[in-house]
Amino acid sequence: MSDFLAEGDHVIGVDIGGTKLMAVVYDHSFEAKGRSKRKSKSKKGEPTEERLTKTIQEALEGAGVERVRGIGVGSPGPLNPKTGVIIDTPNLAWKNFPLAKYLEKAFNVPVVVDNDVNVGTYGEYRFGEIRDCESVLGVFPGTGIGAGIIIDRKVFYGFSGAAGEFGHMTLEVDGPYCGCGKRGCLEALASRVAIAAESAALAARGDAPNLLATCGTDLAKIRSGALAEAIKAGDTMVEGVVRKAAYYVGIATGNAINMLSPEAVVLGGGLVEAMPKLYLEEIKRGISDHAMPFLRKKVRIVTAKLGDDAVVLGAAHMIAERVGDS
Amino acid sequence: MSDFLAEGDHVIGVDIGGTKLMAVVYDHSFEAKGRSKRKSKSKKGEPTEERLTKTIQEALEGAGVERVRGIGVGSPGPLNPKTGVIIDTPNLAWKNFPLAKYLEKAFNVPVVVDNDVNVGTYGEYRFGEIRDCESVLGVFPGTGIGAGIIIDRKVFYGFSGAAGEFGHMTLEVDGPYCGCGKRGCLEALASRVAIAAESAALAARGDAPNLLATCGTDLAKIRSGALAEAIKAGDTMVEGVVRKAAYYVGIATGNAINMLSPEAVVLGGGLVEAMPKLYLEEIKRGISDHAMPFLRKKVRIVTAKLGDDAVVLGAAHMIAERVGDS
Repeated sequence: MSDFLAEGDHVIGVDIGGTKLMAVVYDHSFEAKGRSKRKSKSKKGEPTEERLTKTIQEALEGAGVERVRGIGVGSPGPLNPKTGVIIDTPNLAWKNFPLAKYLEKAFNVPVVVDNDVNVGTYGEYRFGEIRDCESVLGVFPGTGIGAGIIIDRKVFYGFSGAAGEFGHMTLEVDGPYCGCGKRGCLEALASRVAIAAESAALAARGDAPNLLATCGTDLAKIRSGALAEAIKAGDTMVEGVVRKAAYYVGIATGNAINMLSPEAVVLGGGLVEAMPKLYLEEIKRGISDHAMPFLRKKVRIVTAKLGDDAVVLGAAHMIAERVGDS
Repeated sequence: MSDFLAEGDHVIGVDIGGTKLMAVVYDHSFEAKGRSKRKSKSKKGEPTEERLTKTIQEALEGAGVERVRGIGVGSPGPLNPKTGVIIDTPNLAWKNFPLAKYLEKAFNVPVVVDNDVNVGTYGEYRFGEIRDCESVLGVFPGTGIGAGIIIDRKVFYGFSGAAGEFGHMTLEVDGPYCGCGKRGCLEALASRVAIAAESAALAARGDAPNLLATCGTDLAKIRSGALAEAIKAGDTMVEGVVRKAAYYVGIATGNAINMLSPEAVVLGGGLVEAMPKLYLEEIKRGISDHAMPFLRKKVRIVTAKLGDDAVVLGAAHMIAERVGDS
């Protein structure tokens, strides 16, 4: 049950991903009433915003609903959550695109837009087992390593609006180069790309025969599922690489616990979903080795439960709060 | 002018240090009306709490004030700011000592007790050039490396009450051993003790002749002032050691900016006071190299201005807010 919406009210949650767009219509108790999905990029060069409008329209038709109270959107950033302007998303070819205004005009309802990691963390927070907590750190290792921070039951933005740049925490001075231009960032040490690079080198040297057989040495093919399978098939050195990366995520999480002292940590993303046991083990070990005992001892460490629905649910909750009556 | 106290009201700020106790009586506009100081430890074994009571009593007499609205205290931790219980201070021989209750009983007024770094940060925040900021990170490198966090104009405590364990951020996996038991903490890399150890090794090898002449190779004698003098006298390798340590503080500050995105950073403590130019240079370089451009570009970096009065002023402001009418 929502505390914000009345019976008969509906809201829409939207997830703009690098590969897919998804829109879900929710009723006042956040039950899904209609959903629609399509690839983010069209082969004919149709602009993403038009594809997005169609996706939302389809979800509305699926739900048999004509009007909603508002639309919540999780999008890759950087973006400005106050204005709903997408500053830059190389993947979707948006540059300073006023997404909130665009959708407000198209559907004539209020729209909130926020960073996908914030929104996903918020979804896991509001609809998961940690909903009673006051402060939460969400950690999502994948192609990048994102984090969302909840303080006092709200997403924490900081002065710039972009707090939570967890992936660019320096953990190794003069370490490997990162996409951001600096060196030794957590992302450069422990993202899926970093894991894929080290694993591909193993494969090239003949030390990861199962991975070599399924993916060759192309980083683009070495996805989370393929890594999990190679480990299962006996590539022990690949397991070592993934464990080391997960441990680094644990060190960074420990550092964040030392600074923020959250009540709970929720771990999600492709790598955690593909190898939950391994990730949980190593991240807990990293926290245990690097967070101060007094700060870590009561922290709840949980894995994400909503899968692909975290962002749409989080976004729907955000807009429900914004437009709701209570 | 205080927004909290009426004319004629007074409060007391207390600073409990490892070496000295200080109490200052402030009027409603935080003008100091009486102050008293003594060493924390008595030669005759007089308990610290009794020495503290005397110090406060003397400050009251000096001010010619009989009654105050309340007492604010900054103390070394760990402590519980909610209950005012000092959990453990090896230096002062307090263990689970209910300091707030003790002083409430002795002076029959409300008392707040908080961590000295939190209180010092709060003092610099409320009475310094960054008082208009909404969020502040205070960084104080010294024997340890403490930090205070201000979010939404209030000290941020986190779930455990002990957020801000900046000194134990891991920056070098398998790095030097830290007093906390783990390895590669900022404190183990960059505190005054770490600097003193590396500088003493230089002195022992004949590479820091000025430091050797003034301090020998005893870490206890290599204080911030002595380091500054040795550098001034031409010990270039000591300068290298201090610059490296300050740069590490900058890396850690950059990491904290990435997570928290504060509006301002205030740098204080013995090392910064002794070598403000060098510290500011290296910390800014560390931030520039390790914080994300979007988050760091508007952050104000300032040095602490209140010196020894930061804790008493911060504590006085805290209790004024607690007991005040607005």
